[in-house]
Amino acid sequence: MKKNILVGQSGGPTAVINASLYGVITEGMEHLDEIEHVYGMIHGVEGFLKDSYTDLSQDLTQKELELIRLTPAAYLGSCRYKLPKDLTSPVYFTLFKKLEALNIGYFLYIGGNDSMDTVSKLSRYAAQVGSPIRFMGIPKTIDNDLMLTDHTPGYGSAAKYVASTVREISLDASVYNQQAVTIVELMGRGAGWLTAASVLARKYEQDNPLLIYLPEAPFDFQSFTRDLTEALRRRPDVIICVSEGISDVSGRLICEYNDEARLDNFGHKMLTGCGKVLENFVRNHFGIKVRSVEVNVSQRCSGMLLSETDVNEAAAAGSFGVRAALDGATGKMVAFNRTLDDPYAMECSLVDVNEVCNKEKPFPSHWITGRTNDISPEFYPYVLPLIQGEPKRAVSRGLPVYAYRK
Amino acid sequence: MKKNILVGQSGGPTAVINASLYGVITEGMEHLDEIEHVYGMIHGVEGFLKDSYTDLSQDLTQKELELIRLTPAAYLGSCRYKLPKDLTSPVYFTLFKKLEALNIGYFLYIGGNDSMDTVSKLSRYAAQVGSPIRFMGIPKTIDNDLMLTDHTPGYGSAAKYVASTVREISLDASVYNQQAVTIVELMGRGAGWLTAASVLARKYEQDNPLLIYLPEAPFDFQSFTRDLTEALRRRPDVIICVSEGISDVSGRLICEYNDEARLDNFGHKMLTGCGKVLENFVRNHFGIKVRSVEVNVSQRCSGMLLSETDVNEAAAAGSFGVRAALDGATGKMVAFNRTLDDPYAMECSLVDVNEVCNKEKPFPSHWITGRTNDISPEFYPYVLPLIQGEPKRAVSRGLPVYAYRK
Repeated sequence: MKKNILVGQSGGPTAVINASLYGVITEGMEHLDEIEHVYGMIHGVEGFLKDSYTDLSQDLTQKELELIRLTPAAYLGSCRYKLPKDLTSPVYFTLFKKLEALNIGYFLYIGGNDSMDTVSKLSRYAAQVGSPIRFMGIPKTIDNDLMLTDHTPGYGSAAKYVASTVREISLDASVYNQQAVTIVELMGRGAGWLTAASVLARKYEQDNPLLIYLPEAPFDFQSFTRDLTEALRRRPDVIICVSEGISDVSGRLICEYNDEARLDNFGHKMLTGCGKVLENFVRNHFGIKVRSVEVNVSQRCSGMLLSETDVNEAAAAGSFGVRAALDGATGKMVAFNRTLDDPYAMECSLVDVNEVCNKEKPFPSHWITGRTNDISPEFYPYVLPLIQGEPKRAVSRGLPVYAYRK
Repeated sequence: MKKNILVGQSGGPTAVINASLYGVITEGMEHLDEIEHVYGMIHGVEGFLKDSYTDLSQDLTQKELELIRLTPAAYLGSCRYKLPKDLTSPVYFTLFKKLEALNIGYFLYIGGNDSMDTVSKLSRYAAQVGSPIRFMGIPKTIDNDLMLTDHTPGYGSAAKYVASTVREISLDASVYNQQAVTIVELMGRGAGWLTAASVLARKYEQDNPLLIYLPEAPFDFQSFTRDLTEALRRRPDVIICVSEGISDVSGRLICEYNDEARLDNFGHKMLTGCGKVLENFVRNHFGIKVRSVEVNVSQRCSGMLLSETDVNEAAAAGSFGVRAALDGATGKMVAFNRTLDDPYAMECSLVDVNEVCNKEKPFPSHWITGRTNDISPEFYPYVLPLIQGEPKRAVSRGLPVYAYRK
């Protein structure tokens, strides 16, 4: 008897999470002997629990499907819903009832480590109750911090966007002939992979960004003062890249250094990032021109500078996940194995989702150099293959065309 | 006797100010019967006064010249130097001495209205002392606020970047199924042209951004509360685009509404934008999820999404300026006349630089609609032709290649 696929997206958007969705849909429709429908949860498990889903194998034209492949953010909508730890909770019973009612045989969830936690719980519940439904995680995160995979879909495009943007900001900062510091705050609460990619912005050795700080090394204002003093001796325009999540040796976030004073007109606490804190520190301690730039959500959701490699790998992860589930796998996450560095070659494999969820892969400490303010050249052969190629986007009236649910 | 060209860049960077430089250099080298060298001031007039210049007709390879055309920010470096009002100041005598020593016949200055002020003063001084040197302004500003020209080079690419970025931020904001407001702060202190371009982000009528506020209309918190309340009835994810320079009816900048309380840990005033002020206002008055995104310098210096029309027109403005100066014009700025709307056609002309400098062309009030929170569809035929086409950039190892001075 034929079964159906149910696919969902969860967690923060990336530029290629929809390429994985594309991979799942197209692969599912390749197996019409085994698969009848590919359903999509609207807003992940949370939405599905409210019966919100769509038939992706029926409702999409081929043109829409191609658009979805290169559309950033989550086409199906996303959620930040955590299933209860206790597998005896009635929510599992309800959810499986709904899965059975839809004749679901394969459940694919595209997300980061919180989403892998969902896959872990559901597959363990299935084992417990003897359900034949197979659960598969498709990795996704710009943070590149999932365990047991060489890298994650989403990272390559975000890294490319960050490197290019920092290169452009460096040009912008170089036009005036005066001492000036630009602090660029990049995403990454716990892991510095994305901020590390800013090193690629250098057009030549010794170029900006001169200083790069990751969350993996404790940030210290005294060392920073020394680093910046030396950097300003090298050139008047200094670019500093920092992860949003840098903290001091005690673990206190640098962005919290302003807490006490950050009240607005209405007496409420204001939230800002570590870039603003460092901007003020430089202004007060160096007395020179300084600005901070928060690259913000565009680094995860921009479709302007996708990595074709990333898009193709994201789609491949989706397809591989479907094939693996059809072959009988459950409770797994699709992982990337790098089989060759030069020329780069990658193949998909499966890892135990329980070994992935709720863990974080830090940026390797031996790649953090220069008194923890620089990135080793050894990082280059790792990251460069991931940012190669630019897919051709659909354009209408001068702007990119993106898919959206009607 | 052959003469030399001296070209400079001044004011803030744009994505196509180097395309104008490219136009000046290539056109200059087309006239080798009249022109011997094309010199470039390093850091504008300020740098030239310190004898900082380069020979652009000698030192650049053809490949470098092509790279310059698509490199954002100012290849020659820029300055924010204002010549004294008093034309008897010795700085004029010094400057003209230097110009004569270099056998300069044609002085081209690429910039916004402050730079046109420089062209105005120098041409008036030349007339006064009977100097034959001809002074020509080449327009440049993402703000699109220069008088007597249909639009300015730099605006099209910035508008395209803004529209595309806001479209992506809207996708990013739409993934969760909850009420959430995103405030996007865009450049524009006095003129709202660039913020108005965010209306192009809409994929369909009634799409985000639902609210758009320009500096040309006074901002009022009570109206804003009403506007947002209504917008939240239309959809849970509301995107609001605001110019950095919005102010209240008394002229007080909205970004200054936090002044009193904005002290950091060290007791110093902190500077933020109006986006942050509105973010806090929404958080406190609506009690819903809200974030602000400052698109920042990338909107003026990104080369990711250039408008080919803008690049070509910027280069044409540079070429036209050289030809006009050779033909005897001085004290002029190159302007754009739109001769046809559909299909769009434009031709260059000359306007009196004295009529341009130190003035600002506001966004037309009859295009500000919807109780001053929306943009009229009449704006579309004006702006759309300016964002068309994407030039092919040089890419190396997955990243754009940009020219820089060695």
